[in-house]
Amino acid sequence: MRNIKITIQFDGTAYHGWQIQSRDTTVQQTLCDAVSTIVNEPVKVHGSGRTDAGVHALGQVAHFQTASGIDPKGLVKGINSRLPDDIVITRAEEVSPDFHARFSAKSRVYWYTIWNTAQPSPFFGRYSWHIIQKLDVAVMQQAAETLIGVHDFSSFQGADKEEVLPVREVFGVRFKRTRQHILLFEIHASSFLKHMVRNIVGTLADVGRGKVTPHEFTAILEARDRTRAGAAAPACGLFLKEVRY
Amino acid sequence: MRNIKITIQFDGTAYHGWQIQSRDTTVQQTLCDAVSTIVNEPVKVHGSGRTDAGVHALGQVAHFQTASGIDPKGLVKGINSRLPDDIVITRAEEVSPDFHARFSAKSRVYWYTIWNTAQPSPFFGRYSWHIIQKLDVAVMQQAAETLIGVHDFSSFQGADKEEVLPVREVFGVRFKRTRQHILLFEIHASSFLKHMVRNIVGTLADVGRGKVTPHEFTAILEARDRTRAGAAAPACGLFLKEVRY
Repeated sequence: MRNIKITIQFDGTAYHGWQIQSRDTTVQQTLCDAVSTIVNEPVKVHGSGRTDAGVHALGQVAHFQTASGIDPKGLVKGINSRLPDDIVITRAEEVSPDFHARFSAKSRVYWYTIWNTAQPSPFFGRYSWHIIQKLDVAVMQQAAETLIGVHDFSSFQGADKEEVLPVREVFGVRFKRTRQHILLFEIHASSFLKHMVRNIVGTLADVGRGKVTPHEFTAILEARDRTRAGAAAPACGLFLKEVRY
Repeated sequence: MRNIKITIQFDGTAYHGWQIQSRDTTVQQTLCDAVSTIVNEPVKVHGSGRTDAGVHALGQVAHFQTASGIDPKGLVKGINSRLPDDIVITRAEEVSPDFHARFSAKSRVYWYTIWNTAQPSPFFGRYSWHIIQKLDVAVMQQAAETLIGVHDFSSFQGADKEEVLPVREVFGVRFKRTRQHILLFEIHASSFLKHMVRNIVGTLADVGRGKVTPHEFTAILEARDRTRAGAAAPACGLFLKEVRY
């Protein structure tokens, strides 16, 4: 059996997240169907991790095993021909049998985009969180930097999911105005708890609006208590940027 | 009665074009409904011109007359609150009674975007024409420049619609690589025939692929015969950029 690593971009608007579910359409299921058709055998595609409903990806990674002899270029072309327009494979490569998209991953990078001006946008609305108020980006950056290092991120995990080990390592955080009205937040960590990026961004937006000070933000992190953080930022602004191995 | 000029952005994917139709959802109808609700009287919104099904706008202009005393800022806020996410009013202003969005317009600018690389994109697919082959942009620019000036554009008008006077003046044309894989074509003219930009871009793509020489492109323009030009480029790559008065 060959082990194939694939890199995937998708617009998550139409999907109930990555993970296969019994009833709703998911990215993983759509990929399994397309890959199975092309390699002509039932295939399970394993991702680097789950993404929530509505979250997008610029570089999700997955792997699957197959007896098929189709070369990587042929796989990209063939699988893309069976996928809907909102999911695209950008790369396929044969990897060693012990490569696992999730367990081999060393770290993940997420991007979160905020559309920060009075008017909404019919184009970026689908891919960003619209915040009308002016945000103090310098103070947001200052607060975000307290996330760097090894921490218990319980304060920022999804209320419905408690990890036994909610400790993660954040390697870097960065706010950047990429266009006139777009504020991009990048966060690089070993891995992420459920809803962690969205809860962090929701709370950092409160910092940017002047409702929470950087000092209070640090206290929220240290409290290890989900009820202390702000509301989760909407899924549509979140992109899985890349997975590093 | 006050005369109000509005500027509109829309993602045209879900609409059967600008112009009101008896059965399908159009941008004009959606705007008429939203404006009428806010000014509390039945209002007809008149646009600067029609756009095809699936075409987008960054700066469509329209006007309407109303007895309402709501100030321009209040109109923008109110109307946007009644519009779906894919249509946004960016500006409203009171203008003289003789202003007419269509008849007062001096010229229009259109943008056409080509996604020019092997892989499709789940994000730009909605807003561009995907061309896999490498395009010779210098030769496309050279051919496009023959459009400048006053010409009979019969060769580039929609097959189903023959204008009595198919003469228009093109003021400028420009190709520009705005990002690594995006090729943007800008065309500025007095006004446009039906499908004119899409037919021009479709034929210029043939020039970029080496199937038509710039000399042949000029001959197509001079032939004043619709059957000579290439196939129309898809609607999803076209944006009405602005209307000048």
